[in-house]
Amino acid sequence: MTLTTTLDTPLLADPADVAADPSRYRVLTGDRPTGPLHLGHYFGTLLNRVRLQRQGVETFLVVADYQVITDRLSPGEIAANVREVVLDNLAAGIDPDRTTVFAHSAVPALNQLMLPFLSLTTVAELQRNPTVKDEAAASGLASISGLLLTYPVHQAADILFCHGNLVPVGDDQLPHVEQTRTIARRFNERYAGGRAVFREPQALLSPAPRLLGVDGRKMSKSRGNAIALKATADETARLIRRSVTDARRDITYDPAGRPGVSSLVEIAALCLGVAPDEVAAQVGSGGSAMLKALVTEVVNEELRPVRERRAAFAAEPGLVGSLLADGAERATALAESTLADVQDALGMGAY
Amino acid sequence: MTLTTTLDTPLLADPADVAADPSRYRVLTGDRPTGPLHLGHYFGTLLNRVRLQRQGVETFLVVADYQVITDRLSPGEIAANVREVVLDNLAAGIDPDRTTVFAHSAVPALNQLMLPFLSLTTVAELQRNPTVKDEAAASGLASISGLLLTYPVHQAADILFCHGNLVPVGDDQLPHVEQTRTIARRFNERYAGGRAVFREPQALLSPAPRLLGVDGRKMSKSRGNAIALKATADETARLIRRSVTDARRDITYDPAGRPGVSSLVEIAALCLGVAPDEVAAQVGSGGSAMLKALVTEVVNEELRPVRERRAAFAAEPGLVGSLLADGAERATALAESTLADVQDALGMGAY
Repeated sequence: MTLTTTLDTPLLADPADVAADPSRYRVLTGDRPTGPLHLGHYFGTLLNRVRLQRQGVETFLVVADYQVITDRLSPGEIAANVREVVLDNLAAGIDPDRTTVFAHSAVPALNQLMLPFLSLTTVAELQRNPTVKDEAAASGLASISGLLLTYPVHQAADILFCHGNLVPVGDDQLPHVEQTRTIARRFNERYAGGRAVFREPQALLSPAPRLLGVDGRKMSKSRGNAIALKATADETARLIRRSVTDARRDITYDPAGRPGVSSLVEIAALCLGVAPDEVAAQVGSGGSAMLKALVTEVVNEELRPVRERRAAFAAEPGLVGSLLADGAERATALAESTLADVQDALGMGAY
Repeated sequence: MTLTTTLDTPLLADPADVAADPSRYRVLTGDRPTGPLHLGHYFGTLLNRVRLQRQGVETFLVVADYQVITDRLSPGEIAANVREVVLDNLAAGIDPDRTTVFAHSAVPALNQLMLPFLSLTTVAELQRNPTVKDEAAASGLASISGLLLTYPVHQAADILFCHGNLVPVGDDQLPHVEQTRTIARRFNERYAGGRAVFREPQALLSPAPRLLGVDGRKMSKSRGNAIALKATADETARLIRRSVTDARRDITYDPAGRPGVSSLVEIAALCLGVAPDEVAAQVGSGGSAMLKALVTEVVNEELRPVRERRAAFAAEPGLVGSLLADGAERATALAESTLADVQDALGMGAY
């Protein structure tokens, strides 16, 4: 692709700009394979990815297998989890002919970009990153590993290896996009005499609110409080029945005062494509039981085609493996080309 | 190679053990290509490498091109410096048929090992490393980069990618060998269920003293106070004439009280293969002028065959490039095999 210099672009992209000229953008997005994706990913990320893909924005989707061991001591059932995550993306509508899907472990040339990019990042910047600090605290580990401290640089390698300029994120990921912009700018200045080898990517903030899990805490794969995309309709019903609500019969939308009820209202609103207040008014004095019945119905209805597609993909033997192999081949070609440009700027390699 | 488990070996290797059974050892060594090598490298490192090679110890020699930008903002004339460093090694007696010579930049699979190894290193360990602290202070840079902080982990990847178990070092590098031992041990425990995927390497301390440059400070490529291997006999004579000594006529060996004089005495002693006191006694009351004349003569005599070989190698067009390409091919095959073992232990890759 011809690299359009987009220096001095603001950190946040305007969705209207993207829709107006999708060919100017290349998206980098991805998932950590720590377990199957859930409703929070679906509304927060997956639908957004599929929308961008439909608009014709070229997309790279990394399965960040090495980043599983940033905040835990064991990689867990990583091969199974990679498979789940890929199937969840396919089920949501990601088309591997239009989106390059690959795992970090299969693209050494991308990972090598860590070295020059680490040279452009100060330890102070890494230690100031608020998301890394939060993740370190949430990990429960006594010490922060070098991989957790430096993963924003690895994320910069993800974004810049493919010259991605649009990164769909939640606001917790904004510090990483800012770090990537700093790395791109410094690379151009320090190693390329001001030539735009890299451009500064923009973040595209997710329009969806952050969903709560059935226990009233943030919906999370590791907390067992999430409605997995691959769950059955019955499992979904059971989980929603367990949701923490309150004893008041009238249903209102009040995220601060009634987080549990309001999260259910939000989920229903997202599925129905209406405002949360409309859902609350509809349930009215039906109480939590009626709200849960409504949420169960609309979630299962929303996910029914996703789950059908997922089951069909899961039944195709070798599908995930061959898709990742194709993606790794495409990603490797691009990573090797970018790495060659990087080494050329540094004067390395041609000895 | 069959990996002999050498857990519970002491940090420091006994040279007698190496001489007794060289086939048990594999050496990892290397240079940062920041400029031509000098007499300090020659006596401190190169002769040791050549001795190990002659004993039949298999050796890997990395030209650490990415590590040039750990402590400076520009890679400098890196291609020229890579060439100088390779020629210096060949001139000293390194035989590329017996020693695998390669550059970091050409072996992405080695560099990828940074990711799992960073996960096995705590930020606290990296920040405690006294050599990194010293280098940060000496760099004169206002901030430490992520690459400087993490380069001991990169060095662990150098050592472990080839299952090296012997690392010839000066004592400033001991913390890095200890960090590598920690990484090897933790990998086996945490990711391989106690199986010895890696063994703990040992350090082989250089028998030579650290030489001073002609300005009385540590001999260093970047200080311009070093006698380069590739210098001419005349340049060598001029540099030694400029050496900082003192006004006393009697020459004694007293490193603490007379560092400049004693460093010259040491250089002569190393070239002649005798004790420093013997050199001091030989010069006696001849004063600095006679000492300098002696040092000039014996250094030029010692380096004459080295310089002749160097000139011959430098005259062969394409020699360095093809040697590095061969080395990169061998190193890549090994790095890919090691990386496959690592990913197998982690459950990664076979999706």
